[in-house]
Amino acid sequence: MADSDKPHLWEKKVSIVYADCRIFKVLKTRFRHPVRKSEGDFFVIDASSWITVVAVTKRQELVTVRQFRFGIEDLSLEVPAGVMESDEDPLESGIRELREETGFVGEGAELLGWIYPNPAIQNNRCHVVGIHNVKQVTKTHWDEHEEIETRLVPLGQVADLLAGGEFRHALSLCALQFYFLKYPL
Amino acid sequence: MADSDKPHLWEKKVSIVYADCRIFKVLKTRFRHPVRKSEGDFFVIDASSWITVVAVTKRQELVTVRQFRFGIEDLSLEVPAGVMESDEDPLESGIRELREETGFVGEGAELLGWIYPNPAIQNNRCHVVGIHNVKQVTKTHWDEHEEIETRLVPLGQVADLLAGGEFRHALSLCALQFYFLKYPL
Repeated sequence: MADSDKPHLWEKKVSIVYADCRIFKVLKTRFRHPVRKSEGDFFVIDASSWITVVAVTKRQELVTVRQFRFGIEDLSLEVPAGVMESDEDPLESGIRELREETGFVGEGAELLGWIYPNPAIQNNRCHVVGIHNVKQVTKTHWDEHEEIETRLVPLGQVADLLAGGEFRHALSLCALQFYFLKYPL
Repeated sequence: MADSDKPHLWEKKVSIVYADCRIFKVLKTRFRHPVRKSEGDFFVIDASSWITVVAVTKRQELVTVRQFRFGIEDLSLEVPAGVMESDEDPLESGIRELREETGFVGEGAELLGWIYPNPAIQNNRCHVVGIHNVKQVTKTHWDEHEEIETRLVPLGQVADLLAGGEFRHALSLCALQFYFLKYPL
């Protein structure tokens, strides 16, 4: 194949659940190249869609959360985020996650975009919800193992925090990128 | 616990390999909250570090790649990326991935930043390498199942492509974000 040719869509063959890991499954799926006729087994993480929330106060402060993350075994500064329930649309999910994690509620919730967390090995999407004029009006409602610190960060400081490595969560960075594409400083 | 208290660092207890999925393992690890004393089992994807490359020509064009991705079962437009070899540093890895996937070689390779792809359920990092004045000088050298289309995109069009949903890979978006933080248009 010449480099300039278009890549082909592989044909999906049999797929099995290789491991059930509660918040995601690992699928082992056989694919076949339509031209080369070669086949291979590929592992894919099967997960519900995720949601990230860029919530901004009337004074142009970003709502951030800090919590222990079991993947990196350390605290992580992020925007509020979570797993969409099966019966939710992204806006409902974003409003719920923001309220449960931080007690903040706002107005004008809007879908700012969506991304694939990792097209190579994951099949789910992550939606980005913007919520405006938020304020803390209710108690938090954490899941069993959650313990979340809420901080307000002036929007004008976010770029410095990104450049300084304070935000490390890829999906938080993407959420902020969508927000600033629509609402440049 | 009051909302304003700092979150605690959980203590790591026993960890087992729950599933070996070739390019990653799934660990099942027991953690214990130091104050609540509650315990829980958490699944973590254990993977090598990854690398993404923002490669730019002398004419200010971004090198992009398009390929079939088994996670989403569709083609995906991205920046060059891959898995770091165990004996590589991020710059070596970025230079190698760019050359293997696209045949492009450049100068002034630099580390633009690093992120966690997903601190909640993954333990690895993704480093972002910038490479300047790149040009296509060698043949591609694809892995067994790779089939990659290379396209040059003027840097000035990248924001429109992001807003238009042409780039969906979270790690590509983060790479571009780091590049534009350092080199604004």
